[in-house]
Amino acid sequence: MRSFPIAAADRVIRAALDEDVGTGDITTEVTVAADAMVRAVLVAKEGLRLAGRDCFVRVFELLDPKGKLEWVFFHEDGDDVQCGERVLTVTGNARTLLTGERTALNLLQRLSGIATLTASWCAELGETRTELVDTRKTTPGLRALEKYAVVVGGGKNHRVGLFDGILIKENHIKAAGSITVAVRNSRKRAPHTLRIEVEVTDFAELDEAIEAGTDAVLLDNMDNETLARAVERAEGRVILEASGNMSKERLASVAATGVDLISAGALTHSAPAVDLSLLFE
Amino acid sequence: MRSFPIAAADRVIRAALDEDVGTGDITTEVTVAADAMVRAVLVAKEGLRLAGRDCFVRVFELLDPKGKLEWVFFHEDGDDVQCGERVLTVTGNARTLLTGERTALNLLQRLSGIATLTASWCAELGETRTELVDTRKTTPGLRALEKYAVVVGGGKNHRVGLFDGILIKENHIKAAGSITVAVRNSRKRAPHTLRIEVEVTDFAELDEAIEAGTDAVLLDNMDNETLARAVERAEGRVILEASGNMSKERLASVAATGVDLISAGALTHSAPAVDLSLLFE
Amino acid sequence: MRSFPIAAADRVIRAALDEDVGTGDITTEVTVAADAMVRAVLVAKEGLRLAGRDCFVRVFELLDPKGKLEWVFFHEDGDDVQCGERVLTVTGNARTLLTGERTALNLLQRLSGIATLTASWCAELGETRTELVDTRKTTPGLRALEKYAVVVGGGKNHRVGLFDGILIKENHIKAAGSITVAVRNSRKRAPHTLRIEVEVTDFAELDEAIEAGTDAVLLDNMDNETLARAVERAEGRVILEASGNMSKERLASVAATGVDLISAGALTHSAPAVDLSLLFE
Amino acid sequence: MRSFPIAAADRVIRAALDEDVGTGDITTEVTVAADAMVRAVLVAKEGLRLAGRDCFVRVFELLDPKGKLEWVFFHEDGDDVQCGERVLTVTGNARTLLTGERTALNLLQRLSGIATLTASWCAELGETRTELVDTRKTTPGLRALEKYAVVVGGGKNHRVGLFDGILIKENHIKAAGSITVAVRNSRKRAPHTLRIEVEVTDFAELDEAIEAGTDAVLLDNMDNETLARAVERAEGRVILEASGNMSKERLASVAATGVDLISAGALTHSAPAVDLSLLFE
Amino acid sequence: MRSFPIAAADRVIRAALDEDVGTGDITTEVTVAADAMVRAVLVAKEGLRLAGRDCFVRVFELLDPKGKLEWVFFHEDGDDVQCGERVLTVTGNARTLLTGERTALNLLQRLSGIATLTASWCAELGETRTELVDTRKTTPGLRALEKYAVVVGGGKNHRVGLFDGILIKENHIKAAGSITVAVRNSRKRAPHTLRIEVEVTDFAELDEAIEAGTDAVLLDNMDNETLARAVERAEGRVILEASGNMSKERLASVAATGVDLISAGALTHSAPAVDLSLLFE
Amino acid sequence: MRSFPIAAADRVIRAALDEDVGTGDITTEVTVAADAMVRAVLVAKEGLRLAGRDCFVRVFELLDPKGKLEWVFFHEDGDDVQCGERVLTVTGNARTLLTGERTALNLLQRLSGIATLTASWCAELGETRTELVDTRKTTPGLRALEKYAVVVGGGKNHRVGLFDGILIKENHIKAAGSITVAVRNSRKRAPHTLRIEVEVTDFAELDEAIEAGTDAVLLDNMDNETLARAVERAEGRVILEASGNMSKERLASVAATGVDLISAGALTHSAPAVDLSLLFE
Repeated sequence: MRSFPIAAADRVIRAALDEDVGTGDITTEVTVAADAMVRAVLVAKEGLRLAGRDCFVRVFELLDPKGKLEWVFFHEDGDDVQCGERVLTVTGNARTLLTGERTALNLLQRLSGIATLTASWCAELGETRTELVDTRKTTPGLRALEKYAVVVGGGKNHRVGLFDGILIKENHIKAAGSITVAVRNSRKRAPHTLRIEVEVTDFAELDEAIEAGTDAVLLDNMDNETLARAVERAEGRVILEASGNMSKERLASVAATGVDLISAGALTHSAPAVDLSLLFE
Repeated sequence: MRSFPIAAADRVIRAALDEDVGTGDITTEVTVAADAMVRAVLVAKEGLRLAGRDCFVRVFELLDPKGKLEWVFFHEDGDDVQCGERVLTVTGNARTLLTGERTALNLLQRLSGIATLTASWCAELGETRTELVDTRKTTPGLRALEKYAVVVGGGKNHRVGLFDGILIKENHIKAAGSITVAVRNSRKRAPHTLRIEVEVTDFAELDEAIEAGTDAVLLDNMDNETLARAVERAEGRVILEASGNMSKERLASVAATGVDLISAGALTHSAPAVDLSLLFE
Repeated sequence: MRSFPIAAADRVIRAALDEDVGTGDITTEVTVAADAMVRAVLVAKEGLRLAGRDCFVRVFELLDPKGKLEWVFFHEDGDDVQCGERVLTVTGNARTLLTGERTALNLLQRLSGIATLTASWCAELGETRTELVDTRKTTPGLRALEKYAVVVGGGKNHRVGLFDGILIKENHIKAAGSITVAVRNSRKRAPHTLRIEVEVTDFAELDEAIEAGTDAVLLDNMDNETLARAVERAEGRVILEASGNMSKERLASVAATGVDLISAGALTHSAPAVDLSLLFE
Repeated sequence: MRSFPIAAADRVIRAALDEDVGTGDITTEVTVAADAMVRAVLVAKEGLRLAGRDCFVRVFELLDPKGKLEWVFFHEDGDDVQCGERVLTVTGNARTLLTGERTALNLLQRLSGIATLTASWCAELGETRTELVDTRKTTPGLRALEKYAVVVGGGKNHRVGLFDGILIKENHIKAAGSITVAVRNSRKRAPHTLRIEVEVTDFAELDEAIEAGTDAVLLDNMDNETLARAVERAEGRVILEASGNMSKERLASVAATGVDLISAGALTHSAPAVDLSLLFE
Repeated sequence: MRSFPIAAADRVIRAALDEDVGTGDITTEVTVAADAMVRAVLVAKEGLRLAGRDCFVRVFELLDPKGKLEWVFFHEDGDDVQCGERVLTVTGNARTLLTGERTALNLLQRLSGIATLTASWCAELGETRTELVDTRKTTPGLRALEKYAVVVGGGKNHRVGLFDGILIKENHIKAAGSITVAVRNSRKRAPHTLRIEVEVTDFAELDEAIEAGTDAVLLDNMDNETLARAVERAEGRVILEASGNMSKERLASVAATGVDLISAGALTHSAPAVDLSLLFE
Repeated sequence: MRSFPIAAADRVIRAALDEDVGTGDITTEVTVAADAMVRAVLVAKEGLRLAGRDCFVRVFELLDPKGKLEWVFFHEDGDDVQCGERVLTVTGNARTLLTGERTALNLLQRLSGIATLTASWCAELGETRTELVDTRKTTPGLRALEKYAVVVGGGKNHRVGLFDGILIKENHIKAAGSITVAVRNSRKRAPHTLRIEVEVTDFAELDEAIEAGTDAVLLDNMDNETLARAVERAEGRVILEASGNMSKERLASVAATGVDLISAGALTHSAPAVDLSLLFE
């Protein structure tokens, strides 16, 4: 499994605490004693795939580096947690736990939501060899965390950003003059460690991309029948990624066309947050 | 109208560009000439309330501080733009525009989505004196921008964070001992510039909060009938905020109960992005 | 009591160490052995109210995160320390203690100075219900720490900055057109979690402000007799803050006028540093 | 003249704006129109030596990088401004000017206060060859600016921090074993670009320091008679700095002892802010 | 051509100015008038391939954002400049030019040194299809700039870091169990946008890597004869990169073996700085 | 000995890890189990003077703050390590050690290279009283670390930057009008804690500099005979630094001329990295 992106998480958490706590959680400071201790339990209010547990913990650690919080964990990232199950308990300073609560839940609910959605989509693919991949349609600032959650959910990552993959789109083709020129220049100028993928909208473009020597082709917004014919036409010479208008319902039928990858922005931009509660005892 | 939060926007945009562009947009650099110029037009693909235009512009300014981009604007924040209408055109370096495109659209679509949703909810309130307010359920890192979008949509802001408002919740009450003690300590210890609001779940709590001298009460998760009785019971002595399970459909009937404020996390955490396209000519 | 603002303190301390130590404490490095150990005792050279003890400690922790400093504390923030009493002892690396000494003392002396001054002013108020509050006339960069010291001294905080309170001054009134319009627009546009305060210079303005529905009024630069008449005139409808030309001597007589709050920039901008010495054994 | 420390000023100003403006100047945003323009004049309310004019200007530039503020200057740093004289006028966005006003004044008043105090002390020295120098007792975070203000006032800078001068104090001597060893080790290990200064409290130490080859000696807390005898004893072999308990009144008599330098922490830690007003028209 | 990495350059330049200028260029400030103007010309003292001209310019822009420096350029990045030729002239504030001179030259000399060395190595490859690539053996902090200089010199970039290419080395193979497992897991878990390269030391490993389906093979430290046999053995099924002990002299003979790529850390870690002088008139 | 510059090292290491690891070491994450443990030994592959051991350790600490790495040290900075000797062993998480390996080695090899070169040059000076000093020709961003390595190698530091020493060069002299004016203004305006050094190219300049009262003179690019005559001419009135065209071979003969200091940029800009290997067991 991919490593949890600690450094990226810390940046996100610091920014989130800055904007929420700012000059102080005034309500908590005026109503709760500075040395009050409390025990809280984190409970799943619905079935979910857990992702981001370390994020949850880090919020409180960064909020109060000297807080002597004590954690007991019942689950870790990747576990399927049932509704009503405890995820963890924490004992510690009441102010720290109250002040960090919302920021910690916001992050955990979002990341577990992505993992849960991804897991449910992956289930549709069953035993097929088609894989589900994410996109760059992530929340600004949260990409590393959201891509991590996709992997926890059983999906696979597409390129992380513009720097670790070549994806030649319509406007690049226009600027280069043709698919052929764009692919040739990519081969010549880009590091040999990167594959080349071309976005196509019809078979003429598909043929030209394959002919030009691309490694992969993104089949943009095609229906299942067209996808199936594209698979046939490509004869295994390139990796084929189906993209556009994906839904959980359609997934199995797209996989049946024989494409290698299905990409869906929905995994990250539309995953509903899952419900988790921090109950104070 | 509130000012566009430039400093917060710049922080968000820098982080978003860092994570997306990283060490370089390799596709664009190998397929598009360094000095190629291009003209692009931003078009609304659905009816929307525009919010975040300056965000869109700043993405490209921060990406290429020396880029001599030329902008023509047809709309500004707060305008209702029809499907198919042009929002702006921009002429400039092709690499700059291609590399920044996704980040710029991501932000504009999200903010305009919030403004559009807020505007449609506000329309439900019609001429009533009830106001629609946001919550702290915003995207980590984007709070200032999302709260700005709510205002552009015609809504009102609740407190920005934990520092500019006192909202005494269940756990604060437990820690303080009672609503009465919590309110009294808030009065005594918090700046006099902040109002005090107490979250209540039944009439006994409502009565105690009013008695204790709170300025406002958050009526948590009550049905319309209960809300109406609470309004009656409060006799205008405190500001009343209805919260929990709000939907556009329910809005008019909640307003009819006579509450002063309706708060809804959905405005920020569930507003669908609106569709805007950047077309290259 | 308010929490010590750790994050703000760390920012201040890092900046202070950067500017003082820079590329290294050359004197110490060339005259003191790298592994020399030393024990030092912090002694009050005058009676004082202690504030900022954690600041003092953090200077050395941040200067040398691996330094195994051992602390023994005899007092904590809020204690009244007599001249000659020990506040703490510390044992640790001699270079670390010598290099951080001035920065640590600078901060502790300033914060304890503010707490001590505030405590002595508060003593003047005795059993009256009038409270002493601070202002925004703090040292650039040190506001969070200085406002904390005011609370340690027994004072109360006014708004922290421009973001957590509404204070309508002369220029805002001019720009809005009148007190009435300014108050009305504030009510309409600002979060309901913030109170509204208007600065007035005469009774006509006082009347208009109350009429317009303000929550509080700042009585600017009035003599005691005028203050007393303003209290009478307001009839308890608003919170009254007396401001301008306050001195310790005048405090009791101002409180006698019946105002709710007395604000004084002097608490932060003119508190003399108290004398504390770090003696090496 | 030394250059104005732009980079340091920008850091200070950003921090000061962050803490004061935070998430927004709510009063100004709700009472002043976004596009209102205003003209303001900065007037000296007492006679003063101006220092920090660029700081004042930068506050508004950093607050609103796109603000088209127009400045007219009547004075520059180093000028002696009479009570009632205009320093500058500025025309620009009303929100920008109102929001930045306090931060800008805070900095200008403090720096001009230091320059004014320094100038008045320097006047006491008249035609003597004794020079007035500052210390490290500056406000945490503001050292570069405050040392600049001392120079504007006609004083001279001592070392900026621990990195650009060697000052061997009591504790260094203890750790090294003796003045002789401390000086010898400094010579041997420190860059040859730095002079060596030793703090002494009596003539035995003075003699040892000179013998050991120090370049300068700080005469700590001596009365004028002792200082005069120290000057005689040193016979011009080292630079002599008188330090401790300096006051404006005492200055001429200390200079008369023949010391080369007089250092005074009061220049920076106790200079009263001078009065300047920004009047809106 | 790749874009000049502005953002990375700015980070490097700010750090370089911080460490060199710190609290001020004291020599220049005390000997040169604040408003003195000067004209300087940058001259090549040896034949070179120019790289980093924008870096040179940015040093002065960042040092003095308001400096009205005027530049005349005779050459741009990628030009071969003869000994004695002018590269540019600049007119501006004398303090700014004197203070930034060393930092600016340091960067330009280093980057042009890399470009010059790379160009001379590339010349050895002549018309062959073998390409010269760089490595990760760059100066800590300067990677983006040094990789840019390699491209300016006519070389090609290998992966930029650990994030944009898969290179399976001996320790990864040990940890995975075998080349076969390592390649299979890479295929399964890594983004499809990245190629897989395996480092091998003999033919058994080469065969296993090809069999396992790697895209490229790094032939580690082989002599020319072994390289030639490896090329033959691979039969064009994978990209072959020769690495280890490369020298300019050996380059042509390595290319003659038919490998696709030759990588050399020397391009970045051992390129001698070229000689350029900034002459003041 | 000087203290290891922890804060500077951390900045360098964070930047180096950012540029190398970025969004993740993809190869390691897909081939090595998250919880695999490994033991590695750091071995010198040639004789060397060790410098930067703490840098090596910090790379892994910063990469994985929670990594429970266990270190055993056989050598510390300043030790002469023989070829084949172990420097340290480390046991810990395999991913952490593999990902940080190159960055850690890059820094240690470079710093030990500088210390080793410096030590070998210092050996040439034998028992003479002439000292070897470094220059400002250091790698951008690494100055603090490289100057530390020079001291570990037995050399001495010249000024760290432009802020802690006065070195009047040709262009300063031109701007000031003459050496005499430049020295006089330096005396008058610069802190008394800094010495003044003047760069001269002939005896007339040497005489003028001494006459003007400089503390030190840099003899620029003179041959040994000229240096010897300069020493004679100066009669011990100033510190003499020989600079320009130094080589290890020439060192003894330069020292024989009687100059006090020999400075050489080669110590930092041309020290070859020494060979150290991290072997995994």
